[in-house]
Amino acid sequence: MSSTLGTSMQDPVQIGADAIEASRVNGTKVYNTDGDSLGHIHDVVIGKRDGHVKYAIMSFGGFLGIGEEYHPLPWNILKYDERQGGYVVGLTVEQLQGAPRYAERDRPNWEDEAYGRRVNDYYGVGYY
Amino acid sequence: MSSTLGTSMQDPVQIGADAIEASRVNGTKVYNTDGDSLGHIHDVVIGKRDGHVKYAIMSFGGFLGIGEEYHPLPWNILKYDERQGGYVVGLTVEQLQGAPRYAERDRPNWEDEAYGRRVNDYYGVGYY
Repeated sequence: MSSTLGTSMQDPVQIGADAIEASRVNGTKVYNTDGDSLGHIHDVVIGKRDGHVKYAIMSFGGFLGIGEEYHPLPWNILKYDERQGGYVVGLTVEQLQGAPRYAERDRPNWEDEAYGRRVNDYYGVGYY
Repeated sequence: MSSTLGTSMQDPVQIGADAIEASRVNGTKVYNTDGDSLGHIHDVVIGKRDGHVKYAIMSFGGFLGIGEEYHPLPWNILKYDERQGGYVVGLTVEQLQGAPRYAERDRPNWEDEAYGRRVNDYYGVGYY
């Protein structure tokens, strides 16, 4: 293994299993724990420095993009389920209806910490 | 902070600063340390379970997608530079020309560990 490009060996990454282009994650179905479809992944939000996925943006409702709403879900409340080929979240439709969401024209500023806190607090997820 | 959704408090995420939709990372310029443009981000490869960005796929050369080649770059060799609004890598054009790359029709299987090892070894980057 060469090490000539000035890269430190810290922070090794897991290669192989489960790797996929982010653009191909979009469209993946999201189910509740009863197996009902709640929506699908519209996009993911990543840290452009740390390279961690922070939110999956789930689209919920709507038809052909009309009236569609986007729910940012903290990444660590989603579990990938191989059998269903999609993500599972332990949420009810009622919980989603009360959750932070936005329409396309009101796209949040992901760099706004107050917004991130509001989302993570709703789902009881830690942050710093 | 409620914690009713069965989510553990482990693995807190950094919210706010630098967060962006993955789809909007695409198109970001990649420069060498002399400030020359090498290409742009075409997509990122993430772990669909661990939510870590593993590779930035840099497109290099080509014109309107014709003859374009894709270089998977291990995420941790890229540094985001606020001033240039893009990523910087310590690579020469010659190093890129010898690097693992593919044309669109030969899209790699990102779950193939041997391929990941080949890429990471080329750049001297750790993996497991």
